[in-house]
Amino acid sequence: MSRTLFELGEALDARLQGDGNIRVERVSSLAHGSSSTLAFMVSRAHLSELHRTQAGAVVLGEEWAAECPVPALVVRNPHAAFARAVAMLHPERKPAPGVHASAVVAPDAQIGAGVSIGPHSVVADGCRIGANAVIGPGCVLMSGATVGAGTHLVAQVFVGSDCRLGERCRIHPGVVIGADGFGLAKENGRWIKVPQVGRVIIGDEVDIGANTTVDRGAIEDTVLGDGVKLDNQIQVAHNVRIGEHSAIAGCVGIAGSAVIGRGCTIGGGVGIAGHLKLADGVHVTGMSLVASDLEQAGAYSSSLPAQPMRQWQKNAARLRHLDEMARKLKQLEAEVARLGASAGQSE
Amino acid sequence: MSRTLFELGEALDARLQGDGNIRVERVSSLAHGSSSTLAFMVSRAHLSELHRTQAGAVVLGEEWAAECPVPALVVRNPHAAFARAVAMLHPERKPAPGVHASAVVAPDAQIGAGVSIGPHSVVADGCRIGANAVIGPGCVLMSGATVGAGTHLVAQVFVGSDCRLGERCRIHPGVVIGADGFGLAKENGRWIKVPQVGRVIIGDEVDIGANTTVDRGAIEDTVLGDGVKLDNQIQVAHNVRIGEHSAIAGCVGIAGSAVIGRGCTIGGGVGIAGHLKLADGVHVTGMSLVASDLEQAGAYSSSLPAQPMRQWQKNAARLRHLDEMARKLKQLEAEVARLGASAGQSE
Amino acid sequence: MSRTLFELGEALDARLQGDGNIRVERVSSLAHGSSSTLAFMVSRAHLSELHRTQAGAVVLGEEWAAECPVPALVVRNPHAAFARAVAMLHPERKPAPGVHASAVVAPDAQIGAGVSIGPHSVVADGCRIGANAVIGPGCVLMSGATVGAGTHLVAQVFVGSDCRLGERCRIHPGVVIGADGFGLAKENGRWIKVPQVGRVIIGDEVDIGANTTVDRGAIEDTVLGDGVKLDNQIQVAHNVRIGEHSAIAGCVGIAGSAVIGRGCTIGGGVGIAGHLKLADGVHVTGMSLVASDLEQAGAYSSSLPAQPMRQWQKNAARLRHLDEMARKLKQLEAEVARLGASAGQSE
Repeated sequence: MSRTLFELGEALDARLQGDGNIRVERVSSLAHGSSSTLAFMVSRAHLSELHRTQAGAVVLGEEWAAECPVPALVVRNPHAAFARAVAMLHPERKPAPGVHASAVVAPDAQIGAGVSIGPHSVVADGCRIGANAVIGPGCVLMSGATVGAGTHLVAQVFVGSDCRLGERCRIHPGVVIGADGFGLAKENGRWIKVPQVGRVIIGDEVDIGANTTVDRGAIEDTVLGDGVKLDNQIQVAHNVRIGEHSAIAGCVGIAGSAVIGRGCTIGGGVGIAGHLKLADGVHVTGMSLVASDLEQAGAYSSSLPAQPMRQWQKNAARLRHLDEMARKLKQLEAEVARLGASAGQSE
Repeated sequence: MSRTLFELGEALDARLQGDGNIRVERVSSLAHGSSSTLAFMVSRAHLSELHRTQAGAVVLGEEWAAECPVPALVVRNPHAAFARAVAMLHPERKPAPGVHASAVVAPDAQIGAGVSIGPHSVVADGCRIGANAVIGPGCVLMSGATVGAGTHLVAQVFVGSDCRLGERCRIHPGVVIGADGFGLAKENGRWIKVPQVGRVIIGDEVDIGANTTVDRGAIEDTVLGDGVKLDNQIQVAHNVRIGEHSAIAGCVGIAGSAVIGRGCTIGGGVGIAGHLKLADGVHVTGMSLVASDLEQAGAYSSSLPAQPMRQWQKNAARLRHLDEMARKLKQLEAEVARLGASAGQSE
Repeated sequence: MSRTLFELGEALDARLQGDGNIRVERVSSLAHGSSSTLAFMVSRAHLSELHRTQAGAVVLGEEWAAECPVPALVVRNPHAAFARAVAMLHPERKPAPGVHASAVVAPDAQIGAGVSIGPHSVVADGCRIGANAVIGPGCVLMSGATVGAGTHLVAQVFVGSDCRLGERCRIHPGVVIGADGFGLAKENGRWIKVPQVGRVIIGDEVDIGANTTVDRGAIEDTVLGDGVKLDNQIQVAHNVRIGEHSAIAGCVGIAGSAVIGRGCTIGGGVGIAGHLKLADGVHVTGMSLVASDLEQAGAYSSSLPAQPMRQWQKNAARLRHLDEMARKLKQLEAEVARLGASAGQSE
């Protein structure tokens, strides 16, 4: 869908620098642009690519505008402006409204105007689907599930009974919302399942990445606030609560009843233990373990970067005796202090 | 499904304290109870909530009975009793027996009495499904798969050819049982696939959480014992064996041919290397790495809890030179010993 | 499918030791063989099992041939030869060509000769499927997806729009190829989705394990080279590039725009941060974190093996003060040097 820079600049509230009649058709990186592409720049790291770019035009901030060799859309927030430009140049192909002949939809399900239900999907009794929602192919909505207006289940999504999704969410393939939490009681050396009767309640504009799982609550609900963004392969256990506009990277595991504040960012592969509280504005670096409450905003870490294996193995071997090392160090301090004192006396 | 305390007390073998004619309809937490709810208490941490509870009744142990402000069911194992109470008050909605018109079931599949097969499921040739089993929507059972009586595949479960599930199991959406193990041989810098001809054999009363994967054996079988409980997003590689009544939390990865004993508990995000043995009664804390046999029952750990990032980074930087530090410490000890000796001589 | 040792030996280019008329029917381990099985040996660790084996014949290397108590196929690369023998004795049951009546295939999809499309699969408009490919039950191919000749999607696989798979790949259940990458721009404390318009491009002979996810590129493509082998539950973020014949174990997370070289091996549970480069021939041990470029071939690690919990907790507690310890050590060195110098003077 080709656009002139005039059109884009107006939509993005940008200052136009150069020829506004240029047309661009699609986005590209700075490095792989051509005369019909729009590129963007968000970091000084790409300055040399900017100088050499073959893109037709570039979205960038005021600080680099003077260095741009091609027409530019100059904006305050280049990343956000670019996001909007991509959406304009590459509008999503939405499936036509209607229920595919192969879908199995319960007679009492409430289906809003403009809804699309794809092939081989299942919508059980008591479900409610808001206007213009898209239920892609192979989805399963169990009894009483609710999907808000404009929400898009891409394909093969599972939504458990009585779970609720807000409006304008995007849920990727393989996501499982509302499976049972891992609730077990022990009796005589065996585990007894504790039936999980809470729900999952998901706010508006929540995105959930492929194969992420969000378990239903044990008694009360698991809750994801408005604007929460989850990447792929995340595990959210029962009764977790995630505050609004928090973003969580791939492969994170969040144990039962953990409460994560608003505006947090959690790096990939992090583990968060159960029954903890993370304050608003907490940031955790990749592959760290959160094992206690984090009561202050700020960055936390227990990430351990890899070294060449031989060096690392020597260090790791020492780590297994670190307590002993610390004791020796303390002994030695006392010894040296004693020696120092007696040397002082003998002088 | 409302019940009197009399009814519940009898079913749970509880001592009734207070008015047995009270009716409860559903379960709640202590904190969010109302006159029609049943709450429970398993830990001293909730004592103040007990004192203030608005629940109609509480399931608890003898030690807290005197402090309960409302009628109580006093039991030896409150968690297990509560699990049973939840099941009584919130009986599962089981789908009606029968094969949905959209399911594709091979003519030679053996389907037991009372079995339900949901929409868009596929049951291939030679499968056997025991009495009262539920195959939810969108499941795929490949040729020769066996599902025991009363087992429930919630939805979108995959069971590979010739794999066997026991009785009264519960398998959640997105679970993949019996995909190929990661068996590769190297030849001239390329990988050759080793066909995986073992099966997955699963005992009775095994629960498997959403999106967990259990690979088929390479030659012999992958085996999960009776009563094993797996949380979500776990990877069980080929030829792993997990002993009876072991419970494994989310996001754990278990490499090929590892053998885990009976009654073990493995924390979330743990990694277990291949070809290892874990004794019965081993407990591993979250995000640890098991890289050698654990021959004794007991708790093991290499969990590293997060610190404020600046502190952590200083510590982690030192860790990269820990071997050097240990050597210096040793040198210093020798030096100080020498100094101490010569000081002793000179005295 | 029974075979004589003569037949197998010829196919595997093996030296036959003993009676070539022996027939074997299936493979077994050395330990659990019987007269009709073929076993193999790749490691000295199994020498005592070799001595006692009941297998009908064994595939092994020249160095152990003299110790084999039963007929043998002696080869240069026993693991690779065994892989081929398994394929001969256990040929895969391929579904018959044809489109199942319940599959939903767009009229304009191009379906090659000999293709099988299983029940409840969906093949959208503009898809192209090469000759003899197998699309198992419950797969979803979005608009414009391409699957190369001989590639096998086992079941319940998702392939996003315009993504391309090469020839002779094997993609396991629950794999999601071409979901949106985790691209977000921040504006006024909220996240804006950056539409992901790149594709996933997968080479020939790529295997992808169950429930692994490979995100589409943001602008340019995510690329897996020929012969790449991915285990289960791996997350490959947008714009990652993985070089030819690299093999990645289960539960690995690879962040956006990371570039992994050729012939690398990545252990289970490893995390690789975004925008990094790993040289050809890099090996990373299980559960390490790669947080910077690895420019040299070789092995890297930050794996921390578990200890008995009490010991570990003492060590981990000291680690939280390691920087302080290192400073004290330095102070002490200075102190001791001073004492040594003054002791030298006073002598």
